[in-house]
Amino acid sequence: MPCAIGLDLGGTNLRAAAIDDSGHLLDHVEGKTAPATGREAILRDMVDSISTLRARLGVSDLAGIGIGVPGFIDMEQGVIRNCNNLPSLENFPIREELSRRLGTPVILENDANAAALGEQWMGAVRGTADLVMLTLGTGIGGGIISAGKVLHGAHGMAGELGHITVVPNGNPCGCGNRGCVEKHASATAITAMAKLLGLGDALTAKDVYDLAVGGNEKAQTIYVSMGESLGILLATLINAFNFPLYLLAGGVLGAWDFFAPAMLAETSRRSFTYRATTPRIEKAQLGNEAGLYGAAYLPSAK
Amino acid sequence: MPCAIGLDLGGTNLRAAAIDDSGHLLDHVEGKTAPATGREAILRDMVDSISTLRARLGVSDLAGIGIGVPGFIDMEQGVIRNCNNLPSLENFPIREELSRRLGTPVILENDANAAALGEQWMGAVRGTADLVMLTLGTGIGGGIISAGKVLHGAHGMAGELGHITVVPNGNPCGCGNRGCVEKHASATAITAMAKLLGLGDALTAKDVYDLAVGGNEKAQTIYVSMGESLGILLATLINAFNFPLYLLAGGVLGAWDFFAPAMLAETSRRSFTYRATTPRIEKAQLGNEAGLYGAAYLPSAK
Repeated sequence: MPCAIGLDLGGTNLRAAAIDDSGHLLDHVEGKTAPATGREAILRDMVDSISTLRARLGVSDLAGIGIGVPGFIDMEQGVIRNCNNLPSLENFPIREELSRRLGTPVILENDANAAALGEQWMGAVRGTADLVMLTLGTGIGGGIISAGKVLHGAHGMAGELGHITVVPNGNPCGCGNRGCVEKHASATAITAMAKLLGLGDALTAKDVYDLAVGGNEKAQTIYVSMGESLGILLATLINAFNFPLYLLAGGVLGAWDFFAPAMLAETSRRSFTYRATTPRIEKAQLGNEAGLYGAAYLPSAK
Repeated sequence: MPCAIGLDLGGTNLRAAAIDDSGHLLDHVEGKTAPATGREAILRDMVDSISTLRARLGVSDLAGIGIGVPGFIDMEQGVIRNCNNLPSLENFPIREELSRRLGTPVILENDANAAALGEQWMGAVRGTADLVMLTLGTGIGGGIISAGKVLHGAHGMAGELGHITVVPNGNPCGCGNRGCVEKHASATAITAMAKLLGLGDALTAKDVYDLAVGGNEKAQTIYVSMGESLGILLATLINAFNFPLYLLAGGVLGAWDFFAPAMLAETSRRSFTYRATTPRIEKAQLGNEAGLYGAAYLPSAK
């Protein structure tokens, strides 16, 4: 049965898996990506992980190798232009170098796009041709699937939804903007708001969630603010795309009951199209696996 | 030579033209659409205009009939769901009724989508497969061309860009939202800002423009504000789509030199993708003809 290898490179670890064309995970390996270790160590880990899986599998039926990486990717050049989590990979011909070391072409994709593709392929909504997926983590990643394919735009940078402005004079962002949604609705934004409210200087997003569960009203307010920011983004996306499905993913999704009511109310208030067409706004289903499945699906999705 | 009939229905007039497949305008007629005259009068004018052109042309080579209409259109049903300018047309099976009266299928399209298609077909940038077009008038219309086709979304309502939020707590809009870009950057918004600044209660957008040309600093400030609002929208669109081309149209374009510097500065500040990929943000070329050409192109664009 044809099988592909997918690799999902994150800011702190990497995972690779051999997945067959029915979506069965046959084998997998995990590694670490410590930003401090530098580019060569990261490249070696990526190549070793893929080579290990290939050796275990045999190569006869390999449909291809797909790799999801964080950052703004120039798809034509196969280069990561901007990568806050792994800056040593910026402006380096990573696709070409990995292909050279592996002795076979690899397909590079933005990790959030890969996650959207993974959800479309193997998630609860499989087969939906048009969807937007938001991954809420340290930042907010976006992936857009239009007519069954990743929307890349002119340079592969489409779907940078985390940097859409939702608060024009809001928190500054490393991208140069102010009020990017990822500075108002990510896990990082949640902990920053907790600090501003005096809940604690070193709380994790999980700590803030536990406070909200325990009835802390300030913590609950944080999720209302987060939900409103997400609602502005969703209304914008719905007005622009009129797609039937918007998926949210990431660790913060555990707090859905705290932020979703404000998010949906804001979306409804701000989008006539939402009220007229009632698209689905839902939790994604594959969790951390989405990017891995999407990476493995890349050779089929070309 | 194959020839199509296009009709562009506006809030105050309608125009129809026979245009051949090389984009030559062979014949045209104009009519009025007074909202107060009601649906039947509007439908009759539409049918009469098209019938007049068909009779003059002969029908042998008619490639089809395309009609651009304002409002949120349910493409599947062929129904205008929301139309502030011509409310009598709302929730009426307009496509079916026009087809019945004309005795032949017609293709319905949102007027802003038709204008985008017209620019892509016959404008200065013809052949660009991916573009966004904004028409700044009483409101702001949006049309998105992706891979050479109008992006419709699930119900034909994609591209409602005038209702994207750019000022979260901004001016209220008839759509139910606050701070829609069309309430901060349309011709109507310009005159409202002029009133707020005490420049006059009954100024037209042209009056405000003349004041700005004459050196009135308040009038000039209005265009800066308008440009900043457009810049937020453009940055959002560029982050989402990463398309190579964004076209602006409408009577307000005459004031380009007053609003474009603020617009481009805001776009640049708010979009890393803009700075990395320098898409073109330009005036559209066909002016009021874009919608007419786009309507005539609809039968070829299916």
